[in-house]
Amino acid sequence: MQTPLKIAVVGSGLVGSLLAIYLKKAGHIVHIYDRSPDIRKITFSGRSINLAMSNRGWKALDGVGIGDAIRDIAIPMEKRAIHLVDKLNFQAYGQEGEAIYSISRGILNRKMIDLAEAAGAVFFFDQKIWDVTLKEATLHAGETERGAWEEKKYDMVFGADGAFSRIRHRMQRQSMFNYSQEFLNIGYKELNIPANADGTHKLDKNSFHIWPRGQYMLIALPNLDGSFTCTLFMPFEGENSFDSLKEIQDVERFFETNFPDSIEVIPMLTEDFFKNPTSTLVTMKCFPWTFEDKVALIGDACHAIVPFYGQGMNAGFEDISVLYDMMQKYGDDWETIFSEYQDSRKPNADAIAELSYRNFMEMSSKTADDTFLLQKKIEKLFSEKHPEKWIPLYSRVTFSDRPYAEALAIGDLQNEIMQKVLKTKNIEEIWDSEEIEAKILALLSEN
Amino acid sequence: MQTPLKIAVVGSGLVGSLLAIYLKKAGHIVHIYDRSPDIRKITFSGRSINLAMSNRGWKALDGVGIGDAIRDIAIPMEKRAIHLVDKLNFQAYGQEGEAIYSISRGILNRKMIDLAEAAGAVFFFDQKIWDVTLKEATLHAGETERGAWEEKKYDMVFGADGAFSRIRHRMQRQSMFNYSQEFLNIGYKELNIPANADGTHKLDKNSFHIWPRGQYMLIALPNLDGSFTCTLFMPFEGENSFDSLKEIQDVERFFETNFPDSIEVIPMLTEDFFKNPTSTLVTMKCFPWTFEDKVALIGDACHAIVPFYGQGMNAGFEDISVLYDMMQKYGDDWETIFSEYQDSRKPNADAIAELSYRNFMEMSSKTADDTFLLQKKIEKLFSEKHPEKWIPLYSRVTFSDRPYAEALAIGDLQNEIMQKVLKTKNIEEIWDSEEIEAKILALLSEN
Repeated sequence: MQTPLKIAVVGSGLVGSLLAIYLKKAGHIVHIYDRSPDIRKITFSGRSINLAMSNRGWKALDGVGIGDAIRDIAIPMEKRAIHLVDKLNFQAYGQEGEAIYSISRGILNRKMIDLAEAAGAVFFFDQKIWDVTLKEATLHAGETERGAWEEKKYDMVFGADGAFSRIRHRMQRQSMFNYSQEFLNIGYKELNIPANADGTHKLDKNSFHIWPRGQYMLIALPNLDGSFTCTLFMPFEGENSFDSLKEIQDVERFFETNFPDSIEVIPMLTEDFFKNPTSTLVTMKCFPWTFEDKVALIGDACHAIVPFYGQGMNAGFEDISVLYDMMQKYGDDWETIFSEYQDSRKPNADAIAELSYRNFMEMSSKTADDTFLLQKKIEKLFSEKHPEKWIPLYSRVTFSDRPYAEALAIGDLQNEIMQKVLKTKNIEEIWDSEEIEAKILALLSEN
Repeated sequence: MQTPLKIAVVGSGLVGSLLAIYLKKAGHIVHIYDRSPDIRKITFSGRSINLAMSNRGWKALDGVGIGDAIRDIAIPMEKRAIHLVDKLNFQAYGQEGEAIYSISRGILNRKMIDLAEAAGAVFFFDQKIWDVTLKEATLHAGETERGAWEEKKYDMVFGADGAFSRIRHRMQRQSMFNYSQEFLNIGYKELNIPANADGTHKLDKNSFHIWPRGQYMLIALPNLDGSFTCTLFMPFEGENSFDSLKEIQDVERFFETNFPDSIEVIPMLTEDFFKNPTSTLVTMKCFPWTFEDKVALIGDACHAIVPFYGQGMNAGFEDISVLYDMMQKYGDDWETIFSEYQDSRKPNADAIAELSYRNFMEMSSKTADDTFLLQKKIEKLFSEKHPEKWIPLYSRVTFSDRPYAEALAIGDLQNEIMQKVLKTKNIEEIWDSEEIEAKILALLSEN
């Protein structure tokens, strides 16, 4: 269908590996470069947030027939387990049978590289790409930024090299390149809940665990080996911050007070706390994403988002689905493929960035709020009765492949309606009544 | 007062030169580097917008006693001359005696370098600074980015190297550095109205001339030699765009139709149009602006704005006034000086960026709008009667040194009030009545 090209993909992460599989499917020669060693040969840990694969991710994986291979290493989580200081609540994510899937980043990345190699892509590890000549699709590789560089000429280059992409770095220095990076004042640190001696999980395995505490929170996602990868999100500075936890006793006291039920399941708490780095969270936006028919950015390299909607990888995988649609539609006309790809994805990338940013407040504060949980219950009931009239925002983002931009716009509208509904007298008692159903229908028809 | 330091300033533009004079006044050794040749020895033209010096600029110049030397090369403009297709209107900028001052960038920059040299600063031209080691305040200079570099060690480095600052470029690669650059879809091109044979000006000399045409506009600012520097602002693409003016005839027809009274005063129209570059307009924001007590950004290097409020240079000069205030307040405690400087300036830099962005619409569209001109007349009258209650936004920005952030906030409030006032019945007839005065007073007291 397409004339075979010699294509370089910079970055052997999740998006780079899956893109390579798609490009092989389209008949191209594919070389993948990564500045790091082969992740299959090293220990990977210490600064990872477990991934939550959802509909958009599965769609992209199933599109090249590797969904089942990945399902083998994924654990379904159909609900949030909300750990308040004095009780535990559960909140279903969607309808019966709907779930998001916990996957360890390291295990998934190794598997994806195996699959890309099996598909015929060739990997070059420990190869640092410092620059690219855009017009020539030529990479410049070398040991150090200021040392000798070697040229590697291709027909086309994809930058799948993440939030701090070197490929994008060159594009940034073109005129008319819009760019922004904004760091949150919140950092994160990885902690660990090991398996029981018999290999079972210490907490409910099929839940996404959250300890919501307002300005900070702890989360835990299950791993195949019975352990959980935990992540503590907290401000860098101020009260209850990384800065305020300097001594072993500070950390112990903080967890005892705020996460009492976590103490007995995180045995290496203080060791991990001081051994693992405190990582930063950035939202990065840019445009354009492509240069002529020569260079394209994909995934985090063109839209890095904060992790609070669990959509970073899913959005990157969806980039590939859309790119492949354009490849099938426009054949060898790569200028049109690139142009349609970036125009189609940019508004959706901006929308999921906004939704992800907002969701920190939902996860860390609202999940502990009774009115919010009531809102979710009302929405869920109404949506079950009128699925054609109401897809809850979370479901539209997570369990559908409707555009993110649509989800953001409709979500705002739904929230306006729900704020009115929640003001109804005695709403706590009559939330599941026909009166409320009629009220929502009336408010919907006004729009 | 301060312990003398060896300080490097990167960039010999207006802000770099004035900063050097201030640093000499404080007793430091000052070296200024510029990647370009000495502007005093080359022809400077082709991509300049004339500068409009206003209160904040004069205050900074007078602070080191050089205001009068600059007044000698400045032309006061106390009003806008608004060239509609069929008539010419005038609109005063402020009260009697208030004016902004047209200065040619090249002439001003040469003068400033002379003054900085006279103050004892040492200039190094044709010296390309590619990088800086932040912790060591060490510059890396060389012929090319990939060639051999020489190290230049200082106690402190200022990046006054403009919107595409190399000093900032290094800071951008630090974690937690927030950054954005956004290009307008509008470009600009320099044109020229020469002097009459007797050296007089072809248009009113004490006016800022505007030809407002909605999506595009032409402006002209007077020079000392009887000429005007003209700037055409226009979208890059679409109808009435640079892209649409490809042939000599296109340009001639466009100016004849849209700027009929400009034809006879711009004799070299098509020559200049195709010779001079089409330049871009960018808004750049970042934070932090400083690194420990070693490196600080100043002027366009940390807050590049679009030119529509005429405040780019004025804002950069005000950075210097604020920095010098902090130097006097905190002595040798440069960490505090830098930290207070950036915290004080950042919200004001953001505010003038927003005001400048909005002002394109004011200049290009609203100045041709009768309702807008009526609004300005009402505000001016009320402000004359109640100067303590109402400083118009333009005056607060241009003729005061109140913070830009305050101007933005109060300006929004004033605009809300004026929108209500303009809805009064027969406002065109009664705009100067006591009824309207009372109405404004009532609306003000509500807030």
